[in-house]
Amino acid sequence: MEAAYEATKLGIATMILVGDEAKISQIAHERGIDLSQFKVVDEPDPIAACKTAVSLVSSRQASSLMKGDIDTSTVMRAVLDKETGLRSGKKLSHIAAFETEGYHKMLFATDCAINIAPDFDTKIDIIENAVAALQNLGIAKPKVALMAAKETVDDKMPVTGEWAKIVDLHKSGERMTGCVVDGPLALDNAVSEDACRIKGINSPVGADADILVAPSIEAGNMLYKCLSFITKAKNGGVVLGAKRPIVLTSRADTAESKLISIALSVLF
Amino acid sequence: MEAAYEATKLGIATMILVGDEAKISQIAHERGIDLSQFKVVDEPDPIAACKTAVSLVSSRQASSLMKGDIDTSTVMRAVLDKETGLRSGKKLSHIAAFETEGYHKMLFATDCAINIAPDFDTKIDIIENAVAALQNLGIAKPKVALMAAKETVDDKMPVTGEWAKIVDLHKSGERMTGCVVDGPLALDNAVSEDACRIKGINSPVGADADILVAPSIEAGNMLYKCLSFITKAKNGGVVLGAKRPIVLTSRADTAESKLISIALSVLF
Repeated sequence: MEAAYEATKLGIATMILVGDEAKISQIAHERGIDLSQFKVVDEPDPIAACKTAVSLVSSRQASSLMKGDIDTSTVMRAVLDKETGLRSGKKLSHIAAFETEGYHKMLFATDCAINIAPDFDTKIDIIENAVAALQNLGIAKPKVALMAAKETVDDKMPVTGEWAKIVDLHKSGERMTGCVVDGPLALDNAVSEDACRIKGINSPVGADADILVAPSIEAGNMLYKCLSFITKAKNGGVVLGAKRPIVLTSRADTAESKLISIALSVLF
Repeated sequence: MEAAYEATKLGIATMILVGDEAKISQIAHERGIDLSQFKVVDEPDPIAACKTAVSLVSSRQASSLMKGDIDTSTVMRAVLDKETGLRSGKKLSHIAAFETEGYHKMLFATDCAINIAPDFDTKIDIIENAVAALQNLGIAKPKVALMAAKETVDDKMPVTGEWAKIVDLHKSGERMTGCVVDGPLALDNAVSEDACRIKGINSPVGADADILVAPSIEAGNMLYKCLSFITKAKNGGVVLGAKRPIVLTSRADTAESKLISIALSVLF
Protein backbone atom coordinates (compact mmCIF):
# COMPACT_ATOMS: atom_id res chain seq x y z
CA MET A 1 0.00 0.00 0.00
CA GLU A 2 2.92 2.36 0.62
CA ALA A 3 4.29 1.69 -2.86
CA ALA A 4 0.81 2.11 -4.33
CA TYR A 5 0.38 5.41 -2.48
CA GLU A 6 3.76 6.62 -3.65
CA ALA A 7 2.97 5.69 -7.26
CA THR A 8 -0.30 7.63 -7.02
CA LYS A 9 1.34 10.71 -5.51
CA LEU A 10 4.07 10.69 -8.17
CA GLY A 11 1.45 10.45 -10.92
CA ILE A 12 2.89 7.15 -12.15
CA ALA A 13 -0.34 5.22 -11.87
CA THR A 14 -3.90 5.30 -10.62
CA MET A 15 -4.35 2.38 -8.26
CA ILE A 16 -7.50 0.35 -7.59
CA LEU A 17 -7.33 -1.61 -4.32
CA VAL A 18 -9.32 -4.85 -4.41
CA GLY A 19 -9.78 -6.56 -1.03
CA ASP A 20 -11.24 -6.35 2.44
CA GLU A 21 -12.18 -2.67 2.73
CA ALA A 22 -12.22 -2.71 6.53
CA LYS A 23 -8.65 -4.07 6.61
CA ILE A 24 -7.55 -1.67 3.87
CA SER A 25 -8.94 1.28 5.85
CA GLN A 26 -7.23 0.13 9.01
CA ILE A 27 -3.83 -0.19 7.31
CA ALA A 28 -4.28 3.16 5.58
CA HIS A 29 -5.06 4.76 8.94
CA GLU A 30 -2.04 3.17 10.63
CA ARG A 31 0.36 4.20 7.86
CA GLY A 32 -1.00 7.69 7.25
CA ILE A 33 -2.17 6.81 3.74
CA ASP A 34 -4.92 9.00 2.26
CA LEU A 35 -7.44 6.46 0.95
CA SER A 36 -9.32 9.08 -1.09
CA GLN A 37 -6.45 8.79 -3.60
CA PHE A 38 -7.54 5.23 -4.44
CA LYS A 39 -10.56 3.52 -5.81
CA VAL A 40 -11.36 0.69 -3.38
CA VAL A 41 -13.34 -2.41 -4.40
CA ASP A 42 -14.56 -4.24 -1.30
CA GLU A 43 -14.07 -7.99 -1.66
CA PRO A 44 -13.11 -9.69 1.61
CA ASP A 45 -12.64 -13.18 0.13
CA PRO A 46 -9.06 -13.50 -1.27
CA ILE A 47 -9.99 -15.84 -4.15
CA ALA A 48 -12.89 -13.64 -5.22
CA ALA A 49 -10.69 -10.54 -4.83
CA CYS A 50 -8.14 -12.00 -7.24
CA LYS A 51 -10.84 -12.91 -9.72
CA THR A 52 -12.30 -9.41 -9.52
CA ALA A 53 -8.90 -7.79 -9.97
CA VAL A 54 -8.17 -9.98 -13.00
CA SER A 55 -11.56 -9.13 -14.52
CA LEU A 56 -10.83 -5.41 -14.11
CA VAL A 57 -7.72 -5.99 -16.23
CA SER A 58 -9.49 -8.23 -18.80
CA SER A 59 -12.18 -5.60 -19.27
CA ARG A 60 -9.57 -2.84 -19.70
CA GLN A 61 -10.73 -0.97 -16.59
CA ALA A 62 -7.18 -1.55 -15.34
CA SER A 63 -4.02 -1.82 -17.40
CA SER A 64 -1.98 -4.11 -15.19
CA LEU A 65 -2.31 -6.37 -12.17
CA MET A 66 -0.37 -6.14 -8.90
CA LYS A 67 -0.17 -8.70 -6.13
CA GLY A 68 -0.75 -7.34 -2.63
CA ASP A 69 -0.49 -9.14 0.71
CA ILE A 70 -1.75 -12.46 -0.67
CA ASP A 71 -0.27 -15.81 -1.73
CA THR A 72 1.29 -15.82 -5.17
CA SER A 73 -0.48 -19.11 -5.96
CA THR A 74 -3.91 -17.54 -5.32
CA VAL A 75 -3.13 -14.69 -7.70
CA MET A 76 -1.69 -17.01 -10.32
CA ARG A 77 -4.72 -19.31 -10.30
CA ALA A 78 -6.87 -16.31 -11.23
CA VAL A 79 -4.35 -15.17 -13.88
CA LEU A 80 -4.08 -18.62 -15.47
CA ASP A 81 -7.80 -19.46 -15.44
CA LYS A 82 -8.54 -20.64 -18.98
CA GLU A 83 -11.82 -18.74 -19.27
CA THR A 84 -11.50 -15.63 -17.18
CA GLY A 85 -7.73 -15.30 -16.82
CA LEU A 86 -5.09 -13.32 -18.67
CA ARG A 87 -3.43 -16.02 -20.80
CA SER A 88 -2.02 -14.82 -24.12
CA GLY A 89 -0.67 -18.08 -25.56
CA LYS A 90 2.89 -17.26 -24.49
CA LYS A 91 4.66 -18.69 -21.47
CA LEU A 92 4.76 -16.31 -18.53
CA SER A 93 8.22 -15.10 -17.57
CA HIS A 94 9.73 -12.71 -15.06
CA ILE A 95 11.95 -9.80 -15.98
CA ALA A 96 13.99 -7.84 -13.45
CA ALA A 97 15.48 -4.39 -14.01
CA PHE A 98 18.59 -3.07 -12.28
CA GLU A 99 20.30 0.28 -12.01
CA THR A 100 23.80 0.27 -10.52
CA GLU A 101 26.94 2.34 -10.77
CA GLY A 102 28.70 -0.82 -11.93
CA TYR A 103 27.01 -0.74 -15.35
CA HIS A 104 26.61 2.12 -17.79
CA LYS A 105 22.86 1.66 -18.37
CA MET A 106 19.80 -0.19 -17.09
CA LEU A 107 20.40 -3.92 -17.04
CA PHE A 108 17.59 -6.47 -17.33
CA ALA A 109 17.67 -10.12 -16.33
CA THR A 110 15.24 -12.89 -17.22
CA ASP A 111 13.94 -15.37 -16.08
CA CYS A 112 14.99 -15.24 -12.46
CA ALA A 113 11.74 -16.27 -10.80
CA ILE A 114 9.20 -18.36 -12.74
CA ASN A 115 10.49 -20.92 -15.24
CA ILE A 116 12.59 -23.55 -13.48
CA ALA A 117 14.38 -25.27 -16.34
CA PRO A 118 12.93 -23.65 -19.47
CA ASP A 119 12.94 -25.86 -22.57
CA PHE A 120 13.88 -24.60 -26.03
CA ASP A 121 10.47 -23.11 -26.87
CA THR A 122 10.07 -21.55 -23.44
CA LYS A 123 13.51 -19.96 -23.77
CA ILE A 124 12.31 -18.30 -26.97
CA ASP A 125 9.13 -17.04 -25.27
CA ILE A 126 11.24 -15.66 -22.42
CA ILE A 127 13.44 -13.77 -24.91
CA GLU A 128 10.49 -12.46 -26.93
CA ASN A 129 8.61 -11.37 -23.81
CA ALA A 130 11.65 -9.39 -22.66
CA VAL A 131 12.35 -7.84 -26.07
CA ALA A 132 8.74 -6.62 -26.44
CA ALA A 133 8.88 -5.10 -22.95
CA LEU A 134 12.15 -3.28 -23.62
CA GLN A 135 10.88 -1.96 -26.93
CA ASN A 136 8.02 -0.40 -24.95
CA LEU A 137 10.65 1.31 -22.81
CA GLY A 138 12.03 2.93 -25.96
CA ILE A 139 14.96 0.59 -26.51
CA ALA A 140 14.34 -0.02 -30.21
CA LYS A 141 16.71 -2.95 -30.68
CA PRO A 142 17.57 -4.53 -27.34
CA LYS A 143 20.85 -6.46 -27.06
CA VAL A 144 20.16 -9.91 -25.66
CA ALA A 145 22.99 -11.96 -24.10
CA LEU A 146 22.36 -15.69 -23.64
CA MET A 147 24.17 -16.64 -20.43
CA ALA A 148 26.34 -19.68 -19.78
CA ALA A 149 29.53 -20.38 -17.87
CA LYS A 150 31.63 -19.91 -20.99
CA GLU A 151 31.46 -18.28 -24.41
CA THR A 152 31.91 -21.37 -26.58
CA VAL A 153 29.73 -24.42 -27.28
CA ASP A 154 30.73 -27.27 -24.97
CA ASP A 155 28.94 -30.63 -25.06
CA LYS A 156 29.48 -30.97 -21.33
CA MET A 157 27.38 -27.82 -20.83
CA PRO A 158 24.21 -28.52 -22.84
CA VAL A 159 22.82 -25.01 -22.52
CA THR A 160 25.72 -23.67 -24.61
CA GLY A 161 24.51 -25.70 -27.62
CA GLU A 162 20.91 -24.66 -27.04
CA TRP A 163 21.92 -20.98 -27.05
CA ALA A 164 23.87 -21.48 -30.29
CA LYS A 165 20.72 -22.94 -31.91
CA ILE A 166 18.65 -20.02 -30.64
CA VAL A 167 21.16 -17.59 -32.17
CA ASP A 168 20.81 -19.44 -35.50
CA LEU A 169 17.01 -19.19 -35.29
CA HIS A 170 17.33 -15.48 -34.53
CA LYS A 171 19.61 -15.00 -37.52
CA SER A 172 17.11 -16.80 -39.76
CA GLY A 173 14.66 -13.97 -38.99
CA GLU A 174 11.82 -16.31 -38.05
CA ARG A 175 11.65 -15.53 -34.35
CA MET A 176 13.12 -12.97 -31.92
CA THR A 177 13.01 -10.10 -34.42
CA GLY A 178 13.69 -6.46 -33.50
CA CYS A 179 16.64 -7.33 -31.30
CA VAL A 180 20.23 -8.54 -31.40
CA VAL A 181 20.76 -11.95 -29.81
CA ASP A 182 24.13 -13.54 -29.08
CA GLY A 183 25.39 -16.46 -27.05
CA PRO A 184 26.58 -18.48 -25.38
CA LEU A 185 28.29 -15.72 -23.46
CA ALA A 186 29.63 -15.62 -19.92
CA LEU A 187 28.52 -12.69 -17.79
CA ASP A 188 31.88 -10.90 -18.05
CA ASN A 189 31.66 -10.94 -21.86
CA ALA A 190 28.17 -9.42 -21.68
CA VAL A 191 29.03 -6.50 -19.42
CA SER A 192 32.77 -5.79 -19.46
CA GLU A 193 34.84 -4.20 -22.21
CA ASP A 194 38.04 -5.31 -20.50
CA ALA A 195 36.87 -8.92 -20.47
CA CYS A 196 35.91 -8.76 -24.17
CA ARG A 197 39.22 -7.18 -25.15
CA ILE A 198 41.40 -9.55 -23.14
CA LYS A 199 39.46 -12.64 -24.26
CA GLY A 200 39.19 -11.46 -27.87
CA ILE A 201 35.37 -11.61 -27.81
CA ASN A 202 33.84 -9.88 -30.81
CA SER A 203 30.12 -10.04 -30.07
CA PRO A 204 27.38 -7.62 -31.19
CA VAL A 205 26.12 -7.59 -27.59
CA GLY A 206 29.56 -7.80 -25.92
CA ALA A 207 30.07 -5.35 -23.02
CA ASP A 208 26.78 -3.66 -23.89
CA ALA A 209 23.99 -6.16 -23.12
CA ASP A 210 20.53 -4.86 -22.24
CA ILE A 211 19.08 -8.24 -21.30
CA LEU A 212 20.84 -11.16 -19.63
CA VAL A 213 18.95 -14.41 -20.24
CA ALA A 214 19.65 -16.93 -17.49
CA PRO A 215 20.17 -20.60 -18.34
CA SER A 216 18.22 -21.86 -15.29
CA ILE A 217 16.20 -20.53 -12.39
CA GLU A 218 19.10 -21.18 -10.02
CA ALA A 219 21.50 -19.07 -12.07
CA GLY A 220 18.92 -16.34 -12.66
CA ASN A 221 17.80 -16.21 -9.06
CA MET A 222 21.38 -15.93 -7.78
CA LEU A 223 22.12 -13.14 -10.25
CA TYR A 224 18.92 -11.32 -9.28
CA LYS A 225 19.57 -11.60 -5.57
CA CYS A 226 23.25 -10.78 -5.89
CA LEU A 227 22.35 -7.53 -7.67
CA SER A 228 19.50 -6.75 -5.24
CA PHE A 229 20.99 -7.77 -1.89
CA ILE A 230 24.79 -7.48 -2.29
CA THR A 231 25.30 -4.94 -5.08
CA LYS A 232 22.23 -3.10 -3.69
CA ALA A 233 21.21 -2.10 -7.20
CA LYS A 234 17.89 -0.28 -7.49
CA ASN A 235 15.59 -2.91 -8.89
CA GLY A 236 12.09 -3.87 -9.90
CA GLY A 237 10.43 -6.86 -11.51
CA VAL A 238 7.44 -7.60 -13.68
CA VAL A 239 5.82 -10.79 -14.98
CA LEU A 240 5.45 -10.77 -18.77
CA GLY A 241 3.70 -13.02 -21.24
CA ALA A 242 0.13 -12.54 -20.00
CA LYS A 243 -2.27 -10.18 -21.77
CA ARG A 244 -1.02 -7.37 -19.53
CA PRO A 245 1.98 -6.95 -17.21
CA ILE A 246 1.73 -8.37 -13.71
CA VAL A 247 3.57 -6.94 -10.70
CA LEU A 248 4.36 -9.92 -8.52
CA THR A 249 6.73 -8.56 -5.92
CA SER A 250 7.99 -10.58 -2.99
CA ARG A 251 7.45 -9.78 0.68
CA ALA A 252 11.17 -9.14 1.09
CA ASP A 253 11.19 -6.43 -1.59
CA THR A 254 11.48 -2.85 -0.38
CA ALA A 255 8.73 -0.28 -0.98
CA GLU A 256 11.12 1.40 -3.45
CA SER A 257 11.50 -1.81 -5.41
CA LYS A 258 7.71 -2.24 -5.49
CA LEU A 259 7.34 1.34 -6.73
CA ILE A 260 9.89 0.72 -9.51
CA SER A 261 7.98 -2.44 -10.45
CA ILE A 262 4.74 -0.45 -10.74
CA ALA A 263 6.49 2.12 -12.93
CA LEU A 264 7.94 -0.62 -15.15
CA SER A 265 4.55 -2.31 -15.54
CA VAL A 266 3.09 1.03 -16.72
CA LEU A 267 5.90 1.51 -19.25
CA PHE A 268 5.74 -2.11 -20.45
CA MET B 1 54.54 -11.23 -13.44
CA GLU B 2 53.28 -7.91 -12.08
CA ALA B 3 51.19 -9.69 -9.46
CA ALA B 4 54.12 -11.97 -8.61
CA TYR B 5 56.42 -8.95 -8.25
CA GLU B 6 53.88 -7.16 -6.06
CA ALA B 7 53.49 -10.25 -3.85
CA THR B 8 57.27 -10.41 -3.47
CA LYS B 9 57.62 -6.72 -2.63
CA LEU B 10 54.79 -6.95 -0.06
CA GLY B 11 56.45 -9.96 1.58
CA ILE B 12 53.40 -12.14 0.89
CA ALA B 13 55.30 -14.81 -0.99
CA THR B 14 58.61 -15.77 -2.52
CA MET B 15 58.01 -16.55 -6.17
CA ILE B 16 59.86 -19.02 -8.39
CA LEU B 17 59.34 -18.35 -12.09
CA VAL B 18 59.48 -21.49 -14.24
CA GLY B 19 59.63 -20.90 -17.97
CA ASP B 20 61.59 -19.47 -20.86
CA GLU B 21 64.22 -17.34 -19.12
CA ALA B 22 64.89 -15.20 -22.20
CA LYS B 23 61.19 -14.31 -22.46
CA ILE B 24 60.91 -13.76 -18.71
CA SER B 25 63.88 -11.36 -18.80
CA GLN B 26 62.40 -9.48 -21.71
CA ILE B 27 59.01 -9.01 -19.99
CA ALA B 28 60.73 -8.01 -16.74
CA HIS B 29 62.76 -5.42 -18.62
CA GLU B 30 59.67 -4.03 -20.40
CA ARG B 31 57.64 -3.79 -17.21
CA GLY B 32 60.36 -2.48 -14.91
CA ILE B 33 60.35 -5.65 -12.82
CA ASP B 34 63.50 -6.41 -10.81
CA LEU B 35 64.22 -10.06 -11.66
CA SER B 36 66.74 -10.41 -8.82
CA GLN B 37 63.71 -10.66 -6.50
CA PHE B 38 62.79 -14.02 -8.07
CA LYS B 39 64.32 -17.41 -8.47
CA VAL B 40 64.07 -18.25 -12.17
CA VAL B 41 64.10 -21.83 -13.47
CA ASP B 42 64.81 -21.85 -17.21
CA GLU B 43 62.52 -24.29 -19.01
CA PRO B 44 61.45 -23.06 -22.44
CA ASP B 45 59.09 -25.97 -23.20
CA PRO B 46 55.64 -25.25 -21.71
CA ILE B 47 54.79 -28.90 -20.91
CA ALA B 48 58.15 -29.47 -19.25
CA ALA B 49 57.82 -26.15 -17.40
CA CYS B 50 54.50 -27.25 -15.90
CA LYS B 51 55.96 -30.60 -14.91
CA THR B 52 58.93 -28.88 -13.27
CA ALA B 53 56.71 -26.43 -11.40
CA VAL B 54 54.50 -29.26 -10.14
CA SER B 55 57.57 -31.22 -9.00
CA LEU B 56 58.81 -28.18 -7.05
CA VAL B 57 55.48 -28.28 -5.18
CA SER B 58 55.46 -32.09 -4.71
CA SER B 59 58.97 -31.95 -3.26
CA ARG B 60 58.00 -29.09 -0.91
CA GLN B 61 60.42 -26.66 -2.51
CA ALA B 62 57.30 -24.58 -3.25
CA SER B 63 54.10 -24.42 -1.24
CA SER B 64 51.65 -23.65 -4.01
CA LEU B 65 51.36 -23.56 -7.78
CA MET B 66 50.38 -20.59 -9.94
CA LYS B 67 49.45 -20.58 -13.60
CA GLY B 68 51.20 -17.94 -15.70
CA ASP B 69 50.69 -17.09 -19.36
CA ILE B 70 49.94 -20.67 -20.38
CA ASP B 71 46.88 -22.76 -21.24
CA THR B 72 44.91 -24.00 -18.24
CA SER B 73 44.72 -27.47 -19.79
CA THR B 74 48.54 -27.74 -19.97
CA VAL B 75 48.84 -26.85 -16.30
CA MET B 76 46.02 -29.20 -15.30
CA ARG B 77 47.51 -32.17 -17.15
CA ALA B 78 50.64 -31.78 -15.02
CA VAL B 79 48.58 -31.33 -11.83
CA LEU B 80 46.40 -34.37 -12.51
CA ASP B 81 49.20 -36.73 -13.63
CA LYS B 82 48.65 -39.89 -11.61
CA GLU B 83 52.32 -40.39 -10.81
CA THR B 84 53.95 -36.99 -10.63
CA GLY B 85 50.91 -34.76 -10.11
CA LEU B 86 49.28 -33.21 -7.05
CA ARG B 87 46.19 -35.44 -6.65
CA SER B 88 44.97 -35.88 -3.07
CA GLY B 89 41.99 -38.20 -3.60
CA LYS B 90 39.54 -35.30 -3.41
CA LYS B 91 37.86 -33.65 -6.34
CA LEU B 92 39.41 -30.35 -7.30
CA SER B 93 37.18 -27.31 -6.79
CA HIS B 94 37.48 -23.56 -7.18
CA ILE B 95 36.83 -21.10 -4.39
CA ALA B 96 36.45 -17.37 -4.93
CA ALA B 97 36.75 -14.69 -2.25
CA PHE B 98 35.01 -11.32 -2.36
CA GLU B 99 35.22 -8.12 -0.36
CA THR B 100 32.46 -5.57 -0.99
CA GLU B 101 30.70 -2.83 0.95
CA GLY B 102 27.48 -4.73 0.36
CA TYR B 103 28.38 -7.47 2.85
CA HIS B 104 29.72 -7.20 6.38
CA LYS B 105 32.60 -9.65 5.96
CA MET B 106 34.55 -11.61 3.37
CA LEU B 107 32.25 -13.74 1.25
CA PHE B 108 33.38 -16.95 -0.45
CA ALA B 109 31.70 -18.73 -3.35
CA THR B 110 32.33 -22.24 -4.63
CA ASP B 111 32.42 -23.85 -7.19
CA CYS B 112 32.19 -21.17 -9.84
CA ALA B 113 34.76 -22.47 -12.29
CA ILE B 114 35.60 -26.18 -12.37
CA ASN B 115 32.82 -28.71 -11.64
CA ILE B 116 30.06 -28.39 -14.22
CA ALA B 117 27.18 -30.30 -12.61
CA PRO B 118 28.68 -31.74 -9.43
CA ASP B 119 27.08 -34.98 -8.23
CA PHE B 120 26.30 -35.70 -4.57
CA ASP B 121 29.81 -36.84 -3.61
CA THR B 122 31.49 -34.05 -5.53
CA LYS B 123 29.25 -31.52 -3.77
CA ILE B 124 30.54 -32.85 -0.43
CA ASP B 125 34.17 -32.59 -1.60
CA ILE B 126 33.51 -29.02 -2.74
CA ILE B 127 32.11 -28.13 0.70
CA GLU B 128 34.93 -29.87 2.59
CA ASN B 129 37.61 -28.27 0.41
CA ALA B 130 36.15 -24.83 1.14
CA VAL B 131 35.73 -25.43 4.87
CA ALA B 132 39.34 -26.59 5.28
CA ALA B 133 40.55 -23.51 3.40
CA LEU B 134 38.52 -21.10 5.53
CA GLN B 135 39.68 -22.76 8.73
CA ASN B 136 43.23 -21.98 7.56
CA LEU B 137 42.15 -18.35 7.28
CA GLY B 138 41.22 -18.43 10.97
CA ILE B 139 37.47 -18.87 10.54
CA ALA B 140 37.08 -21.71 13.04
CA LYS B 141 33.56 -22.76 12.10
CA PRO B 142 32.61 -21.46 8.68
CA LYS B 143 28.93 -20.97 7.88
CA VAL B 144 28.09 -22.77 4.65
CA ALA B 145 24.94 -21.85 2.68
CA LEU B 146 23.75 -24.34 0.05
CA MET B 147 22.29 -22.25 -2.74
CA ALA B 148 19.07 -22.82 -4.65
CA ALA B 149 16.31 -20.63 -6.05
CA LYS B 150 14.19 -21.11 -2.90
CA GLU B 151 14.56 -22.09 0.73
CA THR B 152 12.31 -25.16 0.77
CA VAL B 153 12.58 -28.62 -0.81
CA ASP B 154 10.73 -28.68 -4.13
CA ASP B 155 10.62 -31.81 -6.30
CA LYS B 156 10.62 -29.61 -9.38
CA MET B 157 14.03 -28.26 -8.32
CA PRO B 158 16.07 -31.43 -7.66
CA VAL B 159 19.03 -29.59 -6.11
CA THR B 160 16.84 -28.52 -3.18
CA GLY B 161 16.37 -32.17 -2.15
CA GLU B 162 20.05 -32.90 -2.62
CA TRP B 163 20.99 -30.00 -0.33
CA ALA B 164 18.53 -31.26 2.31
CA LYS B 165 20.24 -34.68 2.23
CA ILE B 166 23.64 -33.03 2.55
CA VAL B 167 22.42 -31.10 5.59
CA ASP B 168 21.24 -34.40 7.13
CA LEU B 169 24.66 -35.95 6.47
CA HIS B 170 26.32 -32.92 8.05
CA LYS B 171 24.09 -33.21 11.12
CA SER B 172 24.98 -36.91 11.45
CA GLY B 173 28.58 -35.78 12.06
CA GLU B 174 30.05 -38.15 9.46
CA ARG B 175 31.19 -35.59 6.93
CA MET B 176 31.58 -31.82 6.71
CA THR B 177 32.64 -31.41 10.33
CA GLY B 178 33.98 -28.16 11.83
CA CYS B 179 31.39 -26.03 10.07
CA VAL B 180 27.71 -25.15 10.05
CA VAL B 181 25.88 -26.21 6.89
CA ASP B 182 22.34 -25.21 5.96
CA GLY B 183 20.19 -25.36 2.87
CA PRO B 184 18.47 -25.15 0.57
CA LEU B 185 18.68 -21.37 0.91
CA ALA B 186 18.17 -18.63 -1.64
CA LEU B 187 20.90 -16.01 -1.84
CA ASP B 188 18.84 -13.36 -0.04
CA ASN B 189 18.39 -15.69 2.95
CA ALA B 190 22.14 -16.28 3.10
CA VAL B 191 23.20 -12.63 3.12
CA SER B 192 20.32 -10.37 4.20
CA GLU B 193 18.84 -9.91 7.66
CA ASP B 194 15.83 -8.13 6.21
CA ALA B 195 15.11 -11.04 3.89
CA CYS B 196 15.38 -13.54 6.77
CA ARG B 197 13.14 -11.47 9.04
CA ILE B 198 10.46 -10.80 6.44
CA LYS B 199 10.43 -14.41 5.23
CA GLY B 200 10.64 -15.85 8.75
CA ILE B 201 13.84 -17.75 7.95
CA ASN B 202 15.50 -19.08 11.09
CA SER B 203 18.73 -20.56 9.77
CA PRO B 204 22.06 -20.95 11.61
CA VAL B 205 23.78 -19.48 8.53
CA GLY B 206 21.02 -16.97 7.67
CA ALA B 207 22.24 -13.46 6.83
CA ASP B 208 25.75 -14.42 7.95
CA ALA B 209 27.04 -16.98 5.43
CA ASP B 210 30.79 -17.28 4.90
CA ILE B 211 30.56 -19.67 1.96
CA LEU B 212 27.93 -19.78 -0.79
CA VAL B 213 27.87 -23.19 -2.48
CA ALA B 214 26.52 -22.92 -6.01
CA PRO B 215 24.15 -25.58 -7.37
CA SER B 216 25.75 -25.59 -10.85
CA ILE B 217 28.60 -24.01 -12.74
CA GLU B 218 26.19 -21.69 -14.54
CA ALA B 219 24.82 -20.32 -11.27
CA GLY B 220 28.24 -20.10 -9.65
CA ASN B 221 29.87 -18.49 -12.65
CA MET B 222 27.15 -15.84 -12.92
CA LEU B 223 27.46 -15.07 -9.20
CA TYR B 224 31.26 -14.86 -9.48
CA LYS B 225 31.18 -12.59 -12.49
CA CYS B 226 28.36 -10.43 -11.13
CA LEU B 227 30.41 -9.78 -8.00
CA SER B 228 33.65 -9.23 -9.96
CA PHE B 229 32.45 -7.27 -12.99
CA ILE B 230 29.25 -5.47 -11.86
CA THR B 231 29.57 -5.15 -8.08
CA LYS B 232 33.32 -4.64 -8.66
CA ALA B 233 34.09 -6.48 -5.43
CA LYS B 234 37.76 -7.06 -4.70
CA ASN B 235 38.24 -10.71 -5.48
CA GLY B 236 40.60 -13.62 -5.78
CA GLY B 237 40.30 -17.31 -6.50
CA VAL B 238 42.15 -20.51 -5.68
CA VAL B 239 41.77 -24.14 -6.75
CA LEU B 240 41.45 -26.49 -3.78
CA GLY B 241 41.45 -30.25 -3.38
CA ALA B 242 44.95 -30.94 -4.69
CA LYS B 243 47.83 -31.58 -2.30
CA ARG B 244 48.51 -27.83 -2.26
CA PRO B 245 46.54 -24.76 -3.39
CA ILE B 246 46.67 -23.80 -7.05
CA VAL B 247 46.29 -20.25 -8.33
CA LEU B 248 44.54 -20.57 -11.66
CA THR B 249 43.62 -17.02 -12.56
CA SER B 250 42.07 -16.05 -15.86
CA ARG B 251 43.55 -13.69 -18.42
CA ALA B 252 40.74 -11.22 -17.76
CA ASP B 253 41.58 -10.97 -14.05
CA THR B 254 43.28 -7.77 -12.91
CA ALA B 255 46.77 -7.76 -11.39
CA GLU B 256 45.09 -6.92 -8.06
CA SER B 257 42.87 -9.98 -8.28
CA LYS B 258 45.91 -12.14 -9.09
CA LEU B 259 47.74 -10.67 -6.08
CA ILE B 260 44.78 -11.45 -3.80
CA SER B 261 44.73 -14.99 -5.19
CA ILE B 262 48.42 -15.43 -4.34
CA ALA B 263 47.78 -14.14 -0.81
CA LEU B 264 44.83 -16.53 -0.38
CA SER B 265 46.87 -19.49 -1.61
CA VAL B 266 49.53 -18.69 1.02
CA LEU B 267 46.91 -18.49 3.79
CA PHE B 268 45.10 -21.64 2.62
